[in-house]
Amino acid sequence: MSAWENNVRRVVPYVPGEQPKEKNIIKLNTNENPYPPSPLVLEKKLSLEKLRLYPDDKASLLVDAIADYHGVNSNQVFVGVGSDDVLAMAFMTFFNSDKKILFPDITYSFYDVWAELLGIGYERQKLDDSFRIKAEDYYKENGGIVIANPNAPTGIAEPVLFIEDIVKKNQDVVVIVDEAYVDFGGESAASLIDKYDNILVVRTFSKSRSMAGLRIGYALGSDVLIKYMNDVKFSYNSYTMNMPSIILGAESIKDEAYFKQTIEKVINTREWFKDEIEKIGFCCPPSSANFLFITHNTVSAREIFERARENKIYVRYFDKPRIDNYLRVTIGTREDMEIFLDFLKKNV
Amino acid sequence: MSAWENNVRRVVPYVPGEQPKEKNIIKLNTNENPYPPSPLVLEKKLSLEKLRLYPDDKASLLVDAIADYHGVNSNQVFVGVGSDDVLAMAFMTFFNSDKKILFPDITYSFYDVWAELLGIGYERQKLDDSFRIKAEDYYKENGGIVIANPNAPTGIAEPVLFIEDIVKKNQDVVVIVDEAYVDFGGESAASLIDKYDNILVVRTFSKSRSMAGLRIGYALGSDVLIKYMNDVKFSYNSYTMNMPSIILGAESIKDEAYFKQTIEKVINTREWFKDEIEKIGFCCPPSSANFLFITHNTVSAREIFERARENKIYVRYFDKPRIDNYLRVTIGTREDMEIFLDFLKKNV
Repeated sequence: MSAWENNVRRVVPYVPGEQPKEKNIIKLNTNENPYPPSPLVLEKKLSLEKLRLYPDDKASLLVDAIADYHGVNSNQVFVGVGSDDVLAMAFMTFFNSDKKILFPDITYSFYDVWAELLGIGYERQKLDDSFRIKAEDYYKENGGIVIANPNAPTGIAEPVLFIEDIVKKNQDVVVIVDEAYVDFGGESAASLIDKYDNILVVRTFSKSRSMAGLRIGYALGSDVLIKYMNDVKFSYNSYTMNMPSIILGAESIKDEAYFKQTIEKVINTREWFKDEIEKIGFCCPPSSANFLFITHNTVSAREIFERARENKIYVRYFDKPRIDNYLRVTIGTREDMEIFLDFLKKNV
Repeated sequence: MSAWENNVRRVVPYVPGEQPKEKNIIKLNTNENPYPPSPLVLEKKLSLEKLRLYPDDKASLLVDAIADYHGVNSNQVFVGVGSDDVLAMAFMTFFNSDKKILFPDITYSFYDVWAELLGIGYERQKLDDSFRIKAEDYYKENGGIVIANPNAPTGIAEPVLFIEDIVKKNQDVVVIVDEAYVDFGGESAASLIDKYDNILVVRTFSKSRSMAGLRIGYALGSDVLIKYMNDVKFSYNSYTMNMPSIILGAESIKDEAYFKQTIEKVINTREWFKDEIEKIGFCCPPSSANFLFITHNTVSAREIFERARENKIYVRYFDKPRIDNYLRVTIGTREDMEIFLDFLKKNV
């Protein structure tokens, strides 16, 4: 080992869902939208000559479009390279206390990775046996709170009053509400940002807007909260959003009809699929996301995962305590789900 | 002030060069390339339907193209959202010593911003009176070294032997060589990455490849160095490079003829412009970059800066010790520079 290696930041990185390169697979493992982005996005002409210039460092076109959409001011919107970038920046900006931050034991598995990377102490709060968050776990002293709502990989959503209760009882720290999946049936806490200056609501274009390939995430919060985040962002990288993201992201926001229609299709498929698999011995918590978290009464999740993979159907399996007999299944097209259902019928 | 503000990371962000929104200006303030990206890039069709999918988290298409271009292995290449992202990740990964990192007093003004953001101690080493780096300043004990070569905003390049000397004498720390401008006449240290495992050479597509708007930067280093950086990157954001960056970046690499031709035009314009302004009382260090660092023998830099701005000509002025009588002037098209020259002739 070389001497310089003594000063390396050593981390155990987050492992994203597999991105298989083979064709003709059914990909239900990374919560992508099965439908393409809005036709407005697909038909937009990008002036690639302009790539010679730096993008707008404030990404105003996109920020203003998001602000208009949510009926907030542009200084209440922060944008980043996917919600992962937004969340990482938020951890870096707000979690600098000696006290531990709190998040559920079963949740998005990047939270502890960011905490480890940045040297932030954390304490996991156990979900109850139905995978529900217990609000009272978040009443104790802490250095900050992160709640995914709907939660992942369970899909369970809590009402905005539940979130407000936690925010109200924790006004001396920042509460991050990660709403990556909220458009598929959750209730957003965005309405709270004018009432509490310590809540940050994080969103993404990757799921409901079918734009995972562009990497656009954003956060809504009080102007003072957003200003602190922007200070850190501008101390890290002046230009995070590239020209195609800014332009195509803003374009997507314009097409509310397509957005609603796509979401409706995903929700309908999800509810149909849930009914069908319950008939063959699966059960799963109620989902407000674009995935289901399923378990079977006799066949192990790992076995189904492996057999599905052999049949070129990819779902997500987490080899972790309490959830190692569950699979997270992204809702694809009706056709995808029919094929998967056929597979399940033959294999359980 | 709210209580949560006590735990906010407080920083003084880097201020990038102005990006004026008005039309019909001459923009010589952020070192952009005056020529568009390669025709291969402009003509490339992006399959925007595929934006619904996450991009390849390893950005293999781009990484492999860069590796081929430099004749190195793909595991010796790291890519990021502009060289700023690459440098920030490198600071985070490698500079975790109790000892101070070293860089010149006059250099890219983001280095101290990253150090402040990440709590890294640093000590500026004074350039000599001709703005040259003194190698012996970097022989003392330190926690890491950052050298921009060619340096910014001076444009002065040092030979690769000079860099090798510093790397050789500092094998217990990581030496970052920031080669953002090297294609315009500098000598790259990329050849050293197989010889020393502690040198990281950082590059960008923003200047010589006319792709500032896409945000593509990369680093070359030993496989072990790159692995550590990727571990940190995957602990921060799984997918940093979006689909357009990966595809258009790889396309750009294919067009070596256009790349060389564009660079030659910029260099020719630079040398012509340098000769012309020296005739009217300016002087500037020899530049191996796409800018000149100019000072006049009677008229103050600030005065020229302000008057140019009134005439819709934007150049960069740094209100900092030792360089507050200099302007950094990006090399534009021959036509841009003729207009600027006319302006200068009337105003000095």
